[in-house]
Amino acid sequence: MTTDFTATRACFHLPEGVIYLDGNSLGPLPRAAAERVARTVSQEWGELIIRGWNKAGWMEQPARLGDRIARLIGAEAGTVVLGDTLSIKVYQALASALELTPTRRVILSDTGNFPSDLYMADGLCRTLGPDYILKTVAPEEVEAAIDETVAVLMLTEVDYRTGRKHDMAGLTARAHAAGALTVWDLAHTAGALPVDLAGSGADFAVGCTYKYLNAGPGGPAFIYVAPRHADVVRPALSGWLGHESPFAFDLAYRPGAGIERMRVGTPPVLQMAALEASLDVWDMADMADVRTRSIALCEAFIAGVEAACPDLALASPRDGDKRGSQVSFRHPQGYAIMQALISRGVIGDFRAPDILRFGFTPLYTTFDDVAGAVAILADIMATGAWDRPEFMARARVT
Amino acid sequence: MTTDFTATRACFHLPEGVIYLDGNSLGPLPRAAAERVARTVSQEWGELIIRGWNKAGWMEQPARLGDRIARLIGAEAGTVVLGDTLSIKVYQALASALELTPTRRVILSDTGNFPSDLYMADGLCRTLGPDYILKTVAPEEVEAAIDETVAVLMLTEVDYRTGRKHDMAGLTARAHAAGALTVWDLAHTAGALPVDLAGSGADFAVGCTYKYLNAGPGGPAFIYVAPRHADVVRPALSGWLGHESPFAFDLAYRPGAGIERMRVGTPPVLQMAALEASLDVWDMADMADVRTRSIALCEAFIAGVEAACPDLALASPRDGDKRGSQVSFRHPQGYAIMQALISRGVIGDFRAPDILRFGFTPLYTTFDDVAGAVAILADIMATGAWDRPEFMARARVT
Repeated sequence: MTTDFTATRACFHLPEGVIYLDGNSLGPLPRAAAERVARTVSQEWGELIIRGWNKAGWMEQPARLGDRIARLIGAEAGTVVLGDTLSIKVYQALASALELTPTRRVILSDTGNFPSDLYMADGLCRTLGPDYILKTVAPEEVEAAIDETVAVLMLTEVDYRTGRKHDMAGLTARAHAAGALTVWDLAHTAGALPVDLAGSGADFAVGCTYKYLNAGPGGPAFIYVAPRHADVVRPALSGWLGHESPFAFDLAYRPGAGIERMRVGTPPVLQMAALEASLDVWDMADMADVRTRSIALCEAFIAGVEAACPDLALASPRDGDKRGSQVSFRHPQGYAIMQALISRGVIGDFRAPDILRFGFTPLYTTFDDVAGAVAILADIMATGAWDRPEFMARARVT
Repeated sequence: MTTDFTATRACFHLPEGVIYLDGNSLGPLPRAAAERVARTVSQEWGELIIRGWNKAGWMEQPARLGDRIARLIGAEAGTVVLGDTLSIKVYQALASALELTPTRRVILSDTGNFPSDLYMADGLCRTLGPDYILKTVAPEEVEAAIDETVAVLMLTEVDYRTGRKHDMAGLTARAHAAGALTVWDLAHTAGALPVDLAGSGADFAVGCTYKYLNAGPGGPAFIYVAPRHADVVRPALSGWLGHESPFAFDLAYRPGAGIERMRVGTPPVLQMAALEASLDVWDMADMADVRTRSIALCEAFIAGVEAACPDLALASPRDGDKRGSQVSFRHPQGYAIMQALISRGVIGDFRAPDILRFGFTPLYTTFDDVAGAVAILADIMATGAWDRPEFMARARVT
């Protein structure tokens, strides 16, 4: 398969006058999603109402779309299901991993992890009791910190700030050798670079669909459970749609078969419709092609910025193989610089304390976008155009 | 305020040829929701992309819509927030209630509770450790079972099968007198009958928006925390949007102010848009008027069915004050009878083992609907038209 990136770009609505380099935060609208969601609202909800659960396939959608995501992350069929938010899925995966390592009490993670993952782990430890500990080390110290006390290694493969990529297969092997299990957060991986969950031996993985997968704001999360664990774990979040027979309305919980038991409550049908349309675009793409183009786009951006903006320090790994699909630069006035960029139509984002973050998303980002963004950034840096009061004032969300 | 039910009915799309008596399972489409969701998709997601979090108010929506629901359930402003599913909110509320009663280990519920609530409680008990127990008694034995061992009384106010209504204020007072807290599930209450959370002294409450509130399939859940507890509890599901400062990306969790801490992950923005449109219809309604008309509709249905269908046994309380906004009848062939009804355009639902359930939703249900449904049900029962193979075959979801 050779991916036609002109064709995939044409599948997206990109606002006039915008160079969008923030698909690693929220992907743009796939044109077909508008029609697909409208159909779900008017034809399915409107005409079928309750009958939509059967006749429009709403009930099966979380597993059906899960299989389509499985292809993108190297997962076996029947191992991925959609639902809830990424934070909830982190809790589920961690609780199950801890259940499978009953003699141990340590969750090991790193300070490069997305804070919500650490918060959820902290909340789970508090619920489980005072023996349970969340231990965080620097990203480069993770491997050395894996020892016989560790129950679960929980990492986000790609750092949300710098794009630094962990070695999933290597760290998973190291964890297994020490008797620990792994939970991988693929928030900045799924749709960004090829991943081989099955081949790497990962035990659990979770991810979101609103970044590189372009499912829209609040798109559902996904969870992967390795086949060897899927029928063994008893979910901590044991909701009725994960029950073996939800519509028997039994008083006692019995987990459903395999990955189905990771479902909890009623799926968000409107969000699922948007996800379905976005996955149609993904069906046109080969992840190896996406990766090749992603690295080329990132390298072009790094070269352009470094040539034109000496005050910006590269915060991402220079080696494309060690990086996700984003490039970050540091500057003490990063917030104001990003506001100035946004005011001129170049949308990236800022991450405290000093990171300017740019996502490169080959399905719709072009080399012209890279050149245009570099030119505007260079102009802002050369003229000091960021140094204005309106760019200093902090909004709540950036 | 006198509610104009002709006007509210005109706000809904009701399919041709259908008498819809299943709004207690999934409410029909508010006409404005189609336009509202389309606007969110095309104008907000499409044009603003990431900027929608600020410029379209996505970030504040869970609390803003929570305040609009608060009015319908007698809650104080600033005590309700939207997000996740009802099952997740049950887990959150229970975990917090248990934290506030640290010397006790028993969750008391009843066998009339919706199974998912019991499943989530069971999963929480397993996570907390072997001392924690979920104890279920028959609905009529709840009051007597409240003793000094009970940490939390968890009940669904209105039974999903029979419509039998618990005495929220009375049982809450009884629980408090015994030193226990309460978690009320309002799935079949919110939008169905007036409720006075503040006045009843309830500690926690949860509910869904896709039933009487008409927010569409997979609409978000809500949670209420009494003001006296809201700044005290530390959430078990401690996600980043419940953090005091989510965009500081601190490594350590610090709960946000009040009800905000019950937020977890990214809100489902498309579902929230549908909810917003449905709440516009609710702004036209007074809950006291809704209750008066609900009881009248239910009484007309009971009278009609009992006069015409001697083989159907009333499963709901006869006294309207002791009933939610639904009427249930029992018949050993309930499943086939409901299928026959649906084939003739009368949509209610079946709940195992033998319950025919009909929801009466004054915003759009008329007395003509009641008369029409009675006539068709009477015909099916008189002619035995339900006794056909196609009505006996069970679909997965009914």
